[in-house]
Amino acid sequence: MVDKLRVITDYLLKAESVVILPHINADGDALGASIALALALKKMNKEVNVLTEEEIPNNLNFLPGQDLVNQKGPEVYDVAVNIDNGDITRLGSREHYYHSARIRLSIDHHSTNKVEADCSYVDTTSSATGEIIYDLLTRYMNAELNKDIALCIYTAIVTDTGCFRYTNTTSRTLSVSSKLLEYEIDFPFVIKKAFDTMSLAKLSAIRQVINSLRLYEDGKIAVSYLTKKDIEIYSLKPDDFEGLVNIGRNIEGVEVSVFLREDGQDLFRVNLRSNDYVDVSKIAEGFNGGGHKRAAGLNISKKLEEAISALVDATISEIRGND
Amino acid sequence: MVDKLRVITDYLLKAESVVILPHINADGDALGASIALALALKKMNKEVNVLTEEEIPNNLNFLPGQDLVNQKGPEVYDVAVNIDNGDITRLGSREHYYHSARIRLSIDHHSTNKVEADCSYVDTTSSATGEIIYDLLTRYMNAELNKDIALCIYTAIVTDTGCFRYTNTTSRTLSVSSKLLEYEIDFPFVIKKAFDTMSLAKLSAIRQVINSLRLYEDGKIAVSYLTKKDIEIYSLKPDDFEGLVNIGRNIEGVEVSVFLREDGQDLFRVNLRSNDYVDVSKIAEGFNGGGHKRAAGLNISKKLEEAISALVDATISEIRGND
Repeated sequence: MVDKLRVITDYLLKAESVVILPHINADGDALGASIALALALKKMNKEVNVLTEEEIPNNLNFLPGQDLVNQKGPEVYDVAVNIDNGDITRLGSREHYYHSARIRLSIDHHSTNKVEADCSYVDTTSSATGEIIYDLLTRYMNAELNKDIALCIYTAIVTDTGCFRYTNTTSRTLSVSSKLLEYEIDFPFVIKKAFDTMSLAKLSAIRQVINSLRLYEDGKIAVSYLTKKDIEIYSLKPDDFEGLVNIGRNIEGVEVSVFLREDGQDLFRVNLRSNDYVDVSKIAEGFNGGGHKRAAGLNISKKLEEAISALVDATISEIRGND
Repeated sequence: MVDKLRVITDYLLKAESVVILPHINADGDALGASIALALALKKMNKEVNVLTEEEIPNNLNFLPGQDLVNQKGPEVYDVAVNIDNGDITRLGSREHYYHSARIRLSIDHHSTNKVEADCSYVDTTSSATGEIIYDLLTRYMNAELNKDIALCIYTAIVTDTGCFRYTNTTSRTLSVSSKLLEYEIDFPFVIKKAFDTMSLAKLSAIRQVINSLRLYEDGKIAVSYLTKKDIEIYSLKPDDFEGLVNIGRNIEGVEVSVFLREDGQDLFRVNLRSNDYVDVSKIAEGFNGGGHKRAAGLNISKKLEEAISALVDATISEIRGND
């Protein structure tokens, strides 16, 4: 089998100019992996640009190497590297940089990756593209890491693993991170910026969800919701809804959390989560929705109280069937 | 210098009966480290008991080896091991087991440790006592680890490092944890049980704090509080107050978070936290309190609104002095 990271290394070492292209709405992994690679190539005296669709978001504005990051660059590069991106159209307005480069490379960890390239390396066992970049730099390119590069790769890994909490965290993830900490990076600062800082809108969403919370079936079912009015008053964006269903799920004794979000007049998007034994996909199927055992979703077109009542009844049946 | 872990190993290997004694209110580290050591000694066919003051708390009831955990045991053991405990009186009603043992050993990572023992090993560079136990088992006792022991040590480490977030996390912490993951432990389950599960009381406290939240000085100061009435209605315990000051601190744009908790009629315990540049110990000193740059505390005897007003004024002065 061809060692694709070796092929990628050869192309990169030969290139004089390299453009690095993370997906739109670049997150901690996309940006961290991109800048880490850029810093290493810069140290090898190559012309290198990281081109992003948007400015660097506030929660990642501590990343070093931002002088290498722009929204535009020269039209043609020797090598373009698509980073952490499974679909080339998700380069947005920057797609032409990829196609016009003499050599097109792609490095990713998403199983859905379908990018065409002169060499495409997809490793779904890596927690983050940053973990692959660590391998590429240390085992293939013989690049010398430094504190800035270590900080970028650490950021990539912690943001994609929820600080080593998600199931994509492996023994290798922790081993790589252990080596990154040897560079004495200020990791508590990274975590504070990347995870702990919260917009006032998000906090308002959390407050509304907690205020709306009701428990049923001896506290085994938690129901919470956001109305269209809540969403408008606090100018909530899709990002702000993330994780809200877990507030109910995390309450001691709760088995199923039901979270409703009013998408249109009397039209609700519903998330279901369970902890231990209820298969919530079965509940969702009863409403023409779907999902997995522990996470499912559905749409329901009813008035709020009727929707809650229907969902609670269906959930009670499922819980009692398991008891 | 004497290698104390070697001395401890020799005592343990010679012993026929061992009692392991974690501090009262045993947490994830105290219990995880204790049970890990107990499981390893049991595999060496020794009589071993972990004696705890209380039943194992709900959030740690997934720990294996609970058949080795009791509240009482035989009066005399060959060896007693004090675990994760810097003050022998914090063994509570079990202190006599320590004193009546033929050999008394102590293993801890707290710098304040003042326990007297035949051999006392205190390593303040270890994130958790569990990290020391890993070293003891693998490098000294040649104990074979298994999935159960790995799970206990992992629990010890993640609970004492806030899942690798706190500053006590080191390169070695991650390296040890990397090796623990090789035993294919269900670490997301540990994290869910140990961190994510929340009592209804705690959630009510969070709700009250968010509802009470006010911002001052262009959003640079966040003030929140719990009244005596809140504390009574929701039967809040000291544990429930932990971390509440961070709700305000984590809001985007906030530099100083002020959290007041009514301890008695018009008597408030106040926590101060800052993010980047305000030295909150200076604010606290103005009210005869104290602390560090980023975390300080004080008591104030005023009516709620007067207390907030005084604290906000003092904080504004400190912020403007820095601007």
